[in-house]
Amino acid sequence: MKVIDLNCDLGESFGDYKMGLDEQVIPLISSANVACGFHAGDPNVMNDTVQTAKQHHVAVGAHIGYPDLVGFGRRNLDITNEQLRNDIIYQIGALRQFVELHGLTLQHVKPHGAMGNMAFVDERIARVIVETMLEVTPELYLYVLPGTAAHRIAEQSGLPFILEVFADRAYNDDLTLVSRKEEGAVIHEPERAAEHVLRMIQDGVVKTRTGAYVPIQAESICVHGDTAGAIHIVKSIRTLLQQEGIAIQSFQQREAVE
Amino acid sequence: MKVIDLNCDLGESFGDYKMGLDEQVIPLISSANVACGFHAGDPNVMNDTVQTAKQHHVAVGAHIGYPDLVGFGRRNLDITNEQLRNDIIYQIGALRQFVELHGLTLQHVKPHGAMGNMAFVDERIARVIVETMLEVTPELYLYVLPGTAAHRIAEQSGLPFILEVFADRAYNDDLTLVSRKEEGAVIHEPERAAEHVLRMIQDGVVKTRTGAYVPIQAESICVHGDTAGAIHIVKSIRTLLQQEGIAIQSFQQREAVE
Amino acid sequence: MKVIDLNCDLGESFGDYKMGLDEQVIPLISSANVACGFHAGDPNVMNDTVQTAKQHHVAVGAHIGYPDLVGFGRRNLDITNEQLRNDIIYQIGALRQFVELHGLTLQHVKPHGAMGNMAFVDERIARVIVETMLEVTPELYLYVLPGTAAHRIAEQSGLPFILEVFADRAYNDDLTLVSRKEEGAVIHEPERAAEHVLRMIQDGVVKTRTGAYVPIQAESICVHGDTAGAIHIVKSIRTLLQQEGIAIQSFQQREAVE
Amino acid sequence: MKVIDLNCDLGESFGDYKMGLDEQVIPLISSANVACGFHAGDPNVMNDTVQTAKQHHVAVGAHIGYPDLVGFGRRNLDITNEQLRNDIIYQIGALRQFVELHGLTLQHVKPHGAMGNMAFVDERIARVIVETMLEVTPELYLYVLPGTAAHRIAEQSGLPFILEVFADRAYNDDLTLVSRKEEGAVIHEPERAAEHVLRMIQDGVVKTRTGAYVPIQAESICVHGDTAGAIHIVKSIRTLLQQEGIAIQSFQQREAVE
Repeated sequence: MKVIDLNCDLGESFGDYKMGLDEQVIPLISSANVACGFHAGDPNVMNDTVQTAKQHHVAVGAHIGYPDLVGFGRRNLDITNEQLRNDIIYQIGALRQFVELHGLTLQHVKPHGAMGNMAFVDERIARVIVETMLEVTPELYLYVLPGTAAHRIAEQSGLPFILEVFADRAYNDDLTLVSRKEEGAVIHEPERAAEHVLRMIQDGVVKTRTGAYVPIQAESICVHGDTAGAIHIVKSIRTLLQQEGIAIQSFQQREAVE
Repeated sequence: MKVIDLNCDLGESFGDYKMGLDEQVIPLISSANVACGFHAGDPNVMNDTVQTAKQHHVAVGAHIGYPDLVGFGRRNLDITNEQLRNDIIYQIGALRQFVELHGLTLQHVKPHGAMGNMAFVDERIARVIVETMLEVTPELYLYVLPGTAAHRIAEQSGLPFILEVFADRAYNDDLTLVSRKEEGAVIHEPERAAEHVLRMIQDGVVKTRTGAYVPIQAESICVHGDTAGAIHIVKSIRTLLQQEGIAIQSFQQREAVE
Repeated sequence: MKVIDLNCDLGESFGDYKMGLDEQVIPLISSANVACGFHAGDPNVMNDTVQTAKQHHVAVGAHIGYPDLVGFGRRNLDITNEQLRNDIIYQIGALRQFVELHGLTLQHVKPHGAMGNMAFVDERIARVIVETMLEVTPELYLYVLPGTAAHRIAEQSGLPFILEVFADRAYNDDLTLVSRKEEGAVIHEPERAAEHVLRMIQDGVVKTRTGAYVPIQAESICVHGDTAGAIHIVKSIRTLLQQEGIAIQSFQQREAVE
Repeated sequence: MKVIDLNCDLGESFGDYKMGLDEQVIPLISSANVACGFHAGDPNVMNDTVQTAKQHHVAVGAHIGYPDLVGFGRRNLDITNEQLRNDIIYQIGALRQFVELHGLTLQHVKPHGAMGNMAFVDERIARVIVETMLEVTPELYLYVLPGTAAHRIAEQSGLPFILEVFADRAYNDDLTLVSRKEEGAVIHEPERAAEHVLRMIQDGVVKTRTGAYVPIQAESICVHGDTAGAIHIVKSIRTLLQQEGIAIQSFQQREAVE
């Protein structure tokens, strides 16, 4: 049976500020990327998010970000290798304590926002992320986009990684994402998003913006849980995957079965 | 042979802001209370401090504090039980990741500033600290002042604790510290501080402000490393203890020997 | 014609975090308490909020708070007089620059959350707030609850103040608010809230929790804009006030008319 | 008589963290660039620094920076025009309130660290700074390095500016600074620094790294006050300028005289 992971960014609330429909989306996914207090999240939110993830058998990973709450980690920051390494270690450690408290183990690491974007294109940033994980958590998976710097360096370094694709984003022929500034960059219709996903899983290709079918390897689908519309998309994907007999499982669940 | 632990607050620098003569004091002590980024410290400082502690065989503990950098954790904060618990878990986890990266294990937890003061007198705060440690790190020691709320509750709860005294502070007859607002509260002369300490270790008494000799149990001496004068005091204590055949060892070292 | 001010806490969003239905409530009120970046708000939010307030001829005041974003300024902080004074000056100055940029002048200051609660009961805090305003903005109004420390000290000191009552809160016989922990503390029905308000304005009395009618002086009604229910209450109050021929005006508008 | 301004970055302490020998350097300079709480400084430090500047008849300007305390504003941040504009307005306003409280008026604005470096080379950043000042404080001077983007745009826009040179930095033939990574970039000898400065003021040329004499216009000398060595350099400059009959005055003092 074909198996796929569904991952979603979670635990992005902060103090009295609520963000994301975490309670609604957690039951629908298999892996949660939990913010660690730098770009979003706080200790209470982290504890609650890990607890809810556990209740729904969802695997937990560290959604690491730049220390820029007001910019939500979306602004690029000219960070040194040492600063980035130590910021990553700090965030993983903080989340790991909550994860272990709830009797779980971390599954993965996923860089957020500007750090994530840099991990796609900047060898230096991608290398620091991979090498830091090899130092402190060599057993954890790194989510990477196929064909990016992070993908190449993780592969070369022997770090376990998970190839991630987007349910709601259009692709260029070179497998980069169509810029949000261009029309058609985001897929809003639940059915189209579900078919987009199914094609990648079943056929191993993505229909790009030019109409071409380009090979792509999808091990995890990144979905969103911040709006009612996003929840619809996830439900639509789940329904179609079930019809097609594709199981939704985290990598931790898969390993537990093996 | 009598054995005593010397502990000092360390890793309190932040970014470009330097605080404390860490490089000078670390070789003189046995246990380091390392700030965890809430009241002081940052990921780079934490990494460097743990590394230096390791080089000098100094045991590392989490110096947990309130999230108030501008107030250096010295202002009391009306924090809920849940917030305090999760702030503690977060800070312990963040530091633990650096400690384990350097091949060490955490030895202890010490509440800083206003949180520390509250742990002496406020049962609620003391209880949250003790119960959180029992939840996440029941094997770690909690530094407590003899006779305080934290002492009582740790003892009742079965949490390992270390009885701490101050090298440079005068005591009242009830073993509370003389308020810094009163004359004679702080001992500045290295020789007097050393004798103050020796009396507590060898005779199990402290000469209080009234001239009385009151029984006190000292397992660790809290020293400071923020000024040249403070370094002098530590050196003076070390010299006297060595003359008297008292070994300076952390609790981790003691256990390793046993 | 009778005149009343309607004030509401606004500009509490932060970065990507949205809070409050500012766009909906601003057209319904006469005075906006704008967060200044300490407990909530950021420079972009402040600019936008002042701009929107101007469009709707709403007077702007500084909603000053403790520097505790994760606690939303709701946790009491053991702040020194000097720290409080300088935090207030900083916040007023930051907001004033936006207000003047948009061609307005500040109307008032209102302490938020824990600072506000302390201004009711703690003479020291109330005095620092009043004296700081006399130093830097002696022409601005301070919102005070009738009978509180802030009220007394503002009155004694000659600082202009505005007597504020709550539309949705029940009162005790001594004019303190019924604690939120007790049943009936909050009035949820729009019609009841409107009548509650009307009685205070027209008759100068509040029907307290015990059923007594106690004299109260209301110059401004504090309303909320954070939920659809809160917007309903404001609309209900407006409707009833209009029926009764009571004008809704800020103090700045009133002065402009005179 | 020739006149020159000496400016220095000040008020960079934060909470218990001390930075800079402010008390020593303030009596030696004519203009103070005061940090505004984003990259450094806090409300108490701002108040104290303005007070000390006033006592020594030193003009005060806003040292605006990126919101990155742990990076001390030295890391470039991919900030939007709107974010930068509003961050600038906020910082100027906060400092202005302290300045006015002490009976002074702001003299200038100087971008710090990464923001300053970008203002030299990035037209977009330089333009936002200049346009924001024209919006809110068109009467204030902007410190600019000769020949940079900020210089050109201030000149084109009609914003008053002050041409600034460095006492302790070597110059390339194109008037850019020799990179700190290269040998000889920083001038450590007080006498050499003083001669370097004198040549720029009296002869209107700088002896560059290649030995060439290149025309440069110096209206203000940037000096440092963070180490004993830096204080020596300032004193050496003052002595030489006095011998040569060159007055040290801020632009505010100059205008007051006229």
